[in-house]
Amino acid sequence: MPRPVPAADGRSPIALDVMGGDNAPGAIIAGAALARRAGVGELILVGHREEVTAELRRQGMDPTDWRIEHAAQVVAMDESPTYALKRKREASISVATRLVKNGAAAALVSAGSTGAQVVSSILHLGRLPGIERPAIAVAVPATHGWSVLIDAGANEQNRASHLVGFAVMGSLYLETAFDVENPRVGLVSIGEEPTKGNDMVREAYNLLAAKSGINFTGMVEGRGLYTGGADVVVCDGFVGNVLLKFSESAARWVAHHLREGMRRRPLATLGGLLMKPAFRHFKQVAGASSIGGAPLLGVRGISIIAHGSSNAEAIMNACKAARHLVDSEINRRISEKMALGDGD
Amino acid sequence: MPRPVPAADGRSPIALDVMGGDNAPGAIIAGAALARRAGVGELILVGHREEVTAELRRQGMDPTDWRIEHAAQVVAMDESPTYALKRKREASISVATRLVKNGAAAALVSAGSTGAQVVSSILHLGRLPGIERPAIAVAVPATHGWSVLIDAGANEQNRASHLVGFAVMGSLYLETAFDVENPRVGLVSIGEEPTKGNDMVREAYNLLAAKSGINFTGMVEGRGLYTGGADVVVCDGFVGNVLLKFSESAARWVAHHLREGMRRRPLATLGGLLMKPAFRHFKQVAGASSIGGAPLLGVRGISIIAHGSSNAEAIMNACKAARHLVDSEINRRISEKMALGDGD
Repeated sequence: MPRPVPAADGRSPIALDVMGGDNAPGAIIAGAALARRAGVGELILVGHREEVTAELRRQGMDPTDWRIEHAAQVVAMDESPTYALKRKREASISVATRLVKNGAAAALVSAGSTGAQVVSSILHLGRLPGIERPAIAVAVPATHGWSVLIDAGANEQNRASHLVGFAVMGSLYLETAFDVENPRVGLVSIGEEPTKGNDMVREAYNLLAAKSGINFTGMVEGRGLYTGGADVVVCDGFVGNVLLKFSESAARWVAHHLREGMRRRPLATLGGLLMKPAFRHFKQVAGASSIGGAPLLGVRGISIIAHGSSNAEAIMNACKAARHLVDSEINRRISEKMALGDGD
Repeated sequence: MPRPVPAADGRSPIALDVMGGDNAPGAIIAGAALARRAGVGELILVGHREEVTAELRRQGMDPTDWRIEHAAQVVAMDESPTYALKRKREASISVATRLVKNGAAAALVSAGSTGAQVVSSILHLGRLPGIERPAIAVAVPATHGWSVLIDAGANEQNRASHLVGFAVMGSLYLETAFDVENPRVGLVSIGEEPTKGNDMVREAYNLLAAKSGINFTGMVEGRGLYTGGADVVVCDGFVGNVLLKFSESAARWVAHHLREGMRRRPLATLGGLLMKPAFRHFKQVAGASSIGGAPLLGVRGISIIAHGSSNAEAIMNACKAARHLVDSEINRRISEKMALGDGD
């Protein structure tokens, strides 16, 4: 096991998977350059050494200025994560995760296969004390500010007890990354009464109501997800993934019907043209490229999942998010909060 | 048990719960008048006789022109359905449902408590042969035409086998009410592969793939719900209810961010003003008031759930929908399709 190598500025580096993502390696390397200039500390570029070197040169950079960790393979977007990771032990996502595991890096960032990153992170890093299941926390622009949806799809299936960890992790993420004080935790259900919902949700309600250290405010319905009273929106990974993906397409769905509504209304058509920048803004906000990525919380280390379509700016923001979560010691705080008894 | 009374035109009447809904009884009675003029056949107004009579007079109608079925009580929106129905045996929703049960009416329409209508319909009418669980089918304006979300919340929890019935009922509803031929059935999941999703969804995939008489096209992800390849979107009642309610709030969510995106962009602000009619159009379409209501399918009779905020026009449309489903014999067709063996 290699010895941990601290960054030049004394901070542990961020391992960046250069091979993952629709625009890899070009956009990832361009993002690394932006991130370095933005002061995120040292980066380790994880990827095929020759390709990375060639791409650095193509972008006018000197490869000797960069730390490169060679990874001979890459997991494709459409591969089965578990199978691919077994078969490709030198995949860039595995190499990046092992850098965090052995202490050579404090965080990893990837725009590659989300499934592979989740499996690799849980497998190599392990779970934080007190956390039954890691979960993906996605920041969503609600009407009252940022809210967090957790779990957005790390799990296909959950038990009620898992959701207690989601609530704690989502609360700390919102406090840490978005400065929301004492965030209100809502549990996704089909009515506001604690007696409504399926078995898992009803049981989770009782567990959340008894948990110390979170501000649980009860059930939240679909209509109040991003427009209502909850800052941390807690649900199982199946529901969360369906909701997240539907949210991403909502702008397209609404835009379609706005266009329909404008037919034979010449002034409204003009209005649509004038509103184009606003629509672009919404898509950007809803796609959360300003955030750059979503953390997989609950593992021993920081693992930031960037969108597959990330451009250089999104990668920079994902690296910033990684650095911020490392510096804020969110993992120590998660474990402390999970250890709180019901009476604390 | 009273003898069935056919309508003046030979068609069995529609029982309209006049006491349920935010705008009852005024808007419901105004809707009844519109529906009658639109030729939906005879209506039975179910509600407190004195109140109904007074409201008819206030709206300039002659009460003797109408069939009124007295119901001394009403289930409030915030009452527990099961408890309320037990305690209030003469609630308007119960009286209306019993009219269908004993053959005096072919369909019921209510804008009152959805929960009470579901419980009352299942309790009094019973299930259709072959249907394990009735379900609410909601028509949603997709980008390619109408699609149907089923179950939108009749059930809090489902087993995989229930979803086969949902697929058959949703398909027939779309064929019958929206003239969609051979509608594509998609199963809501978190990936397109049949191996993804939770246990229930994976099992349902296999059952749907083996079912004759439907056009099952596989899993559909959140991002493709109303913008992709499925006409009938099948899911359990928990997921469906969360999705439906979130859909209804999506316009508000998107509009908020469009406004944010227009700040300090004067031309875009003008655009927003010009687009107001288009936004109203979307809200109307998304709220599906043009449809008037969603059927609870799978019970022995037609039960149309109108939105609580229904105005007169929505009630008229709900009555039209009821008449159309009665005339199309959708229930006979559902039972026939459920009886098909795997080899048929």
